[in-house]
Amino acid sequence: MPIHEIAIGRVEETYHPSVLKAALAEFISALIFVFAGKGSGMAFNYVTDNGKTTPAGLIQAALAYGFGLFIGVAVSANISGGHVNPAVTFGAFIGGHITLLRGILYWIAQCLGSTVACLLLRVATGGLTTSAFSISSGVSVWNALVLEIVMTFGLVYTVYATALDPKKGQLGIIAPLAIGLIVAANILAGGAFDGASMNPAVSFGPALVSWTWTHHWVYWVGPLIGGGIAALVYDIIFYSTHEPVPSEP
Amino acid sequence: MPIHEIAIGRVEETYHPSVLKAALAEFISALIFVFAGKGSGMAFNYVTDNGKTTPAGLIQAALAYGFGLFIGVAVSANISGGHVNPAVTFGAFIGGHITLLRGILYWIAQCLGSTVACLLLRVATGGLTTSAFSISSGVSVWNALVLEIVMTFGLVYTVYATALDPKKGQLGIIAPLAIGLIVAANILAGGAFDGASMNPAVSFGPALVSWTWTHHWVYWVGPLIGGGIAALVYDIIFYSTHEPVPSEP
Amino acid sequence: MPIHEIAIGRVEETYHPSVLKAALAEFISALIFVFAGKGSGMAFNYVTDNGKTTPAGLIQAALAYGFGLFIGVAVSANISGGHVNPAVTFGAFIGGHITLLRGILYWIAQCLGSTVACLLLRVATGGLTTSAFSISSGVSVWNALVLEIVMTFGLVYTVYATALDPKKGQLGIIAPLAIGLIVAANILAGGAFDGASMNPAVSFGPALVSWTWTHHWVYWVGPLIGGGIAALVYDIIFYSTHEPVPSEP
Amino acid sequence: MPIHEIAIGRVEETYHPSVLKAALAEFISALIFVFAGKGSGMAFNYVTDNGKTTPAGLIQAALAYGFGLFIGVAVSANISGGHVNPAVTFGAFIGGHITLLRGILYWIAQCLGSTVACLLLRVATGGLTTSAFSISSGVSVWNALVLEIVMTFGLVYTVYATALDPKKGQLGIIAPLAIGLIVAANILAGGAFDGASMNPAVSFGPALVSWTWTHHWVYWVGPLIGGGIAALVYDIIFYSTHEPVPSEP
Repeated sequence: MPIHEIAIGRVEETYHPSVLKAALAEFISALIFVFAGKGSGMAFNYVTDNGKTTPAGLIQAALAYGFGLFIGVAVSANISGGHVNPAVTFGAFIGGHITLLRGILYWIAQCLGSTVACLLLRVATGGLTTSAFSISSGVSVWNALVLEIVMTFGLVYTVYATALDPKKGQLGIIAPLAIGLIVAANILAGGAFDGASMNPAVSFGPALVSWTWTHHWVYWVGPLIGGGIAALVYDIIFYSTHEPVPSEP
Repeated sequence: MPIHEIAIGRVEETYHPSVLKAALAEFISALIFVFAGKGSGMAFNYVTDNGKTTPAGLIQAALAYGFGLFIGVAVSANISGGHVNPAVTFGAFIGGHITLLRGILYWIAQCLGSTVACLLLRVATGGLTTSAFSISSGVSVWNALVLEIVMTFGLVYTVYATALDPKKGQLGIIAPLAIGLIVAANILAGGAFDGASMNPAVSFGPALVSWTWTHHWVYWVGPLIGGGIAALVYDIIFYSTHEPVPSEP
Repeated sequence: MPIHEIAIGRVEETYHPSVLKAALAEFISALIFVFAGKGSGMAFNYVTDNGKTTPAGLIQAALAYGFGLFIGVAVSANISGGHVNPAVTFGAFIGGHITLLRGILYWIAQCLGSTVACLLLRVATGGLTTSAFSISSGVSVWNALVLEIVMTFGLVYTVYATALDPKKGQLGIIAPLAIGLIVAANILAGGAFDGASMNPAVSFGPALVSWTWTHHWVYWVGPLIGGGIAALVYDIIFYSTHEPVPSEP
Repeated sequence: MPIHEIAIGRVEETYHPSVLKAALAEFISALIFVFAGKGSGMAFNYVTDNGKTTPAGLIQAALAYGFGLFIGVAVSANISGGHVNPAVTFGAFIGGHITLLRGILYWIAQCLGSTVACLLLRVATGGLTTSAFSISSGVSVWNALVLEIVMTFGLVYTVYATALDPKKGQLGIIAPLAIGLIVAANILAGGAFDGASMNPAVSFGPALVSWTWTHHWVYWVGPLIGGGIAALVYDIIFYSTHEPVPSEP
């Protein structure tokens, strides 16, 4: 096909059943993931009467989002590639692993899945608030931006190293588990400061349903910058090396 | 064999040693799973003097049920398929992966395993109560029904995507781990609101032993609807596609 | 070799380098496992000023023993079979998978590893107590016996289903992970009532170093009965079936 | 090549692109790992107002460092061998698996990665302290030395048994997971007494950034002794055996 279509993709592609199936898989994965993750935050607020964050609360959030993303990636890996995150899709686009049109379709599916998860959580909990991600006291918006950049760099670097790198062969257990657990580990660190989203879709659903847009841009710009840098670093330095790297001298 | 036997199964099948072995494997897996899960709830009540749910309590329940189900599925996967849940068996029946008669045998084995686990827990703890699942204050029975539907949809969708889909080849580590951890993640979210059963057998044993049937139907109807929808969605949209889906443009 | 040597083994066998290496591997695995597990209990006592058990304390113990046993099994699996537990060795002997002499050597190595771990813990913590396992108030010695029997049944059944069953082929990730996590799950349930040992060596080291032998027999008799039953059940019913069991009708 | 070059390596080697790539991979892995681990400690201090260590705090640290190291090893395993720890690199050097020059390059990369992580954490949290590892009250510097030796012995023994042993074949999921979880298990035990570093780079970054060098030598000497002993034990006793060890009599 013409060279410009490699990056942008053909419009007809978005109608192709396999692409629509992939988008549906992203939608369902995002729904399952956000339902568990956001739901655990609502459960924390419910059992603590909207108490302030505690170490146990950070662990609860880390495991819910971490295990939830592990499942989200595992169940869609063979269908859509298991992105479940606009920053991962953006990183894959930067590296030339997905076209612009398919990427946009994924973004819509991911944001829609997160939104439907929040709506279902409202119904399932008798109307509790799906509060948006927010920045804690003592942390500036620029601090939070750095935090999201660094954490999402780690996440998308992990995606590249375990899921996209052809040296790894067939996607098995290590990619979804590593992707889920880097999110869990980062929430244990960053969750206290800005919620540790690392994923614009995760922030978008609660913001839309609770209609709270304060600092919302941080949760898009940070992950996209971090994910983009990770994609560039891995693609330029590690990915291009197709000959095996000798690890023993 | 005649076409109607494919769905219903032959009566003689239920006497076949391999089918009885499969039912026994389901019984033992349900026993191990519920012993750990329900036992962790009793331990929480014991060490907190029947205190109210805390984030640590949700984590304790999530890990006990999640790890317990991982083991329950792993040890019976090669013998019975590793259902350990009437909603999973129902989903497999909906998709034509198990006959009605074998399914009924599985249901009986699963509920019996859960019940024996609760009886053993009473003996092992000096007579503590195996309290039934219940709906928390502020949550209506319809909220809880939605909650069970959505969470079990995620669970059975995960079973299909990792364990039943022939594209995945041999059942390895990913299916039991994903099935166990989606239950853990959902308990971190839904456990505070209705106990997050996602499994009629898990609710049946404690209800029978403590003879508490309030809202018990929710824990059957919700999981069966959610599991059925997941089976239909996966079977109709993803499962029928036997040709590999191109994930790169 | 003569038939009686199959079960008892030859005396010369215990001098064979590969058998001594296997015993050394069991010793080191038990040391690593008990150091993490027992150490976590001492850390709980240290940071809570010998406070009473809490849900967070149960989670801490479950993860330390569970992750520790995962490592203990994983690092010795290819050398000794990864027992790290006299009840597992006893179950393997019952099923004819290990000779009496080798089994005794394993028992000695496992108990020695646990004891050295406790001695090192005393040195490393400035002399803190390595308290023995004990039965909680309201739980009789017979309740605890049932508890240890049921929990160790689950553990040894898991060992058989994931590690010893030849249908499974090469020992991979699933056996050590399932063995570690069934112990974690059972501690979340039984830890509050009798410490949830499921392993005579785990109880022996602290009992010897702290010289506390109250109810110590429960932590040998319970696991050996439970492990023996699991071995018999699996060997007679599931293990003998070498033809693949059809899981689809 | 001449025999002395096998251990020391050639100077030109350090300029070779594949070696520089390996060092960069170690740098990035250490950065991701320390960002999550150290960040979780800062988050604990933030949400508890610098409260004293609790069981939940130990669990938070154990999971952040454990999951973080799992990712650190997984993403660099195919590029640099996934050391992410000067004690592991030292153990690999003792066993002749890496040259001195490459080892020094790894050490620099690991310490640099940890330092940059701490600097980024300061920026991302609005200037919070990246406190150095310290020894708790009642624990002498010699107790802490023993603690670090024993725990790092377990860690490097695990690396040898799961990642370096050629009997294991291709590095898969078990090596990074076991390496991550032995660190998690040991933190649940030793974290209360001396922070449970087991890794000089992990201690170096916070010490440098907060300029606190009290007892810093313990966190180098302990891990190097423990890692060195593990390498010698494994290499001499287990590693040299290239013929399969019969595990059944």
